[in-house]
Parts: sequence; C-alpha cells; structure tokens
Amino acid sequence: MALLEDLNWRHAVKAYDATKKVSKENIDKIVEAARLAPTSSGLQPFKVLVVENQELKEKLVKGALNPECMRDCSHVVIFAAWDRYTEDRIDNVYDYTTDQRGLERGRFGSYTDMLKKIYLNQPAEENFAHIARQTYIALGLALAQAAELKVDSTPVEGFDNNVIDEILELEKLGLKSVSLMYVGYANTPLDWIAPMKKVRTPKEDFLIEFK
Amino acid sequence: MALLEDLNWRHAVKAYDATKKVSKENIDKIVEAARLAPTSSGLQPFKVLVVENQELKEKLVKGALNPECMRDCSHVVIFAAWDRYTEDRIDNVYDYTTDQRGLERGRFGSYTDMLKKIYLNQPAEENFAHIARQTYIALGLALAQAAELKVDSTPVEGFDNNVIDEILELEKLGLKSVSLMYVGYANTPLDWIAPMKKVRTPKEDFLIEFK
Repeated sequence: MALLEDLNWRHAVKAYDATKKVSKENIDKIVEAARLAPTSSGLQPFKVLVVENQELKEKLVKGALNPECMRDCSHVVIFAAWDRYTEDRIDNVYDYTTDQRGLERGRFGSYTDMLKKIYLNQPAEENFAHIARQTYIALGLALAQAAELKVDSTPVEGFDNNVIDEILELEKLGLKSVSLMYVGYANTPLDWIAPMKKVRTPKEDFLIEFK
Repeated sequence: MALLEDLNWRHAVKAYDATKKVSKENIDKIVEAARLAPTSSGLQPFKVLVVENQELKEKLVKGALNPECMRDCSHVVIFAAWDRYTEDRIDNVYDYTTDQRGLERGRFGSYTDMLKKIYLNQPAEENFAHIARQTYIALGLALAQAAELKVDSTPVEGFDNNVIDEILELEKLGLKSVSLMYVGYANTPLDWIAPMKKVRTPKEDFLIEFK
C-alpha cells in the first residue's frame, strides 16, 4: 500500500515556507523517478531542469500565476520537452541503448525506421503534442516520489510558457516547457487547502468493468 | 527507495502468460492509483475501463498492434478521456467536491468561472489535447502501482483508437481512448526484452541544474 498511502498523503500545496530547503539527496531521488519514467518507444523526449538559485527563481516569477509559491518553494522543477522528433535524436537514443546493452548499433533499425517514417512526416506541432504527453508520466512519478519522501510539492500548468522558455533559453536547446513542479515544505497556516478533505471521483463513476 | 526500486524492477512486458490472472485485489489497487492521480484543477477528466472478459478482449484485438499481448494478458486497462470540457462536467466535479467538504456549492465559483471562460471558448480538439495529457499522470501511477505489487504491465499507445472506441461505445459516454495498459504476468521465455539491461538517458544529459 505504500504508493496509495503516499498518493493519499500528498496534495497540491498552495503556500511554501521559504526558510525550509529540500536536501540534495531528496531532489536527486525526485529527478531519478522522472528519469526512470517509461516513455513512448523509450525515447525520453524531454529534460528536467531544477532551479534552486533564488535569483533565477525571482526572474522566473514573472511567468508564474502563483508567484509566492514559486518564490518560496525550495526548488522549481521544469519539465521541458523536445520541440520535435528528429532523425538525430531518435538515433542518439537507440545508439546509446544498443551500446549499453552490448548490441550492435542498428539492431533496432527497422523499428527506428518506422518511428522516423511516422514522426518525421508529421508537422512539428503534432510531434510536440505527442512528446508533451510523455512528460506527464514523469511529472506523476516525480510527485509520487516527493510524497514518499514526505516532501511537499505542487504540479503546475498555470504559467506563461514563453516567459519561462525565454529566461531559461530553452529554444537554444530545442526544448519547450510543458509543466512545472514546485518542491519544498508547506507553510501550513497559509496552505489553505491542507485541512480540506481530499476529493476524487468516486470509484463507481471512475471505473467501468467488463468481467 | 520503494518507488525507485519498483521503477527499476518494471519493464514494458512483450509477452504474457495467458494462464495467469491478476487478483481482483491487485486490479483494485492499480485502479485506485489512477483514481488518486492529480489532474489539472482536480477535474479528473477521464475514466478507466478494465476489460477482463476474454470475449471482449478478442474483439478489441482487432485494434491492437500487439494482438498476442492483448489476448494473453490478464486485464486490459483503457484510459479514456472526456472528449471535451463542458459546463456540466466542470460543475459536477466542483458540486461533488464542495458537498464532500461540507462547503456551500459555488464556494469555488470564481475559479470555475475562470475555467469555463478558458475551456468553453476553445475548440474541442484543444480541450482534448489538454485532457489527454492528464491521463498520462494516471497511466504512470498505475504502472508504478502494478510494479509495487510485482504485477507485470505494458503501457500501450500503439493501437487503433477508432476500433477501440467503437467496440467499447465510448462516443456515447463522451469519451475517447488515449492509452492502454496491459496487466498480467509475463511469459518469460517469450518476453524478449526481459533479459536486456534497462537503459535511460544518463543523468548528466537528462538534468540541468541551476544552483
């Protein structure tokens, strides 16, 4: 029941205590959960940026819809997706994979040819729509990992992507921000949602079974 | 380290043992992890369908790119997203939430008004793109829960959505399939990927830190 307990424990924190920092060890585990996330065809088409630097956080606040949270949390995690699939990016992943597995490069050639045929014939926006979805798997697992460590967090879509991308110079890296995650420790008196009951769609409305 | 161990343990299984069934208790926990997944504004804009019925699975196989896996796994889980946001759907979620919290309905009225202003003025496709992303959080957590239980699984995007939607009559429910998850126990001799090393982008390429 560990994961279910952790998921019941967590909530999207609305106010952070600026005096409390998350340890490097815990940040490493949160990033590791994101890194181990499964992704479509194993392409891992994104990077994770972790901003602890307060000066940089203050700049990023310009793009935040909840500036106090961003300013006061310990670390801001940015899930930044590839702007599109390219031949090189696909080959790099599979070359590295075959190398690591002691297989000859090209071992998965017919598979990567198929991927290239699909993705490289799509407009960049269609690629990005598919890529962006993958980042949410990692976001979910990073949130679960934070909960396991009893580290507070907030998943965030409410921000100005253009501002964040520009400040972090993501275009140069061929990346675009998709979501953020604030990590830290709640300022409990100000975290108004904390005392409220966690509510989810009841199971009978959520699940349809064919036995 | 429980979650990290589970994520290292799991892999996308390529062949299932048709004689081994996953217990109801374990299926319930996997569904519960999906149900507890955080989603944008807490709207939980999707349902989970679980198909154990072999006859129905055989029909769904028509839409599968990996028919043997679908046929032989114990349960097929379908993540089916709302086709779009509507006023009713948003109100239903928030009415239920306020009821459950013992608050007057409309307590979050200015927030839901803002959501409606954004979503109801978007084309259905733009709504759906946002909704579909949310399902991936639940997919990731369901995969993690299966791993915790040492239940094998496969996340699946490779299928014909139209076939699956038609057979399950999802349109009537205002839903569209996004991803599948096969759940069961591997047929180890045929699960060719099992002996291979798990490979992920190395941390130094995955993570960018601003300290």
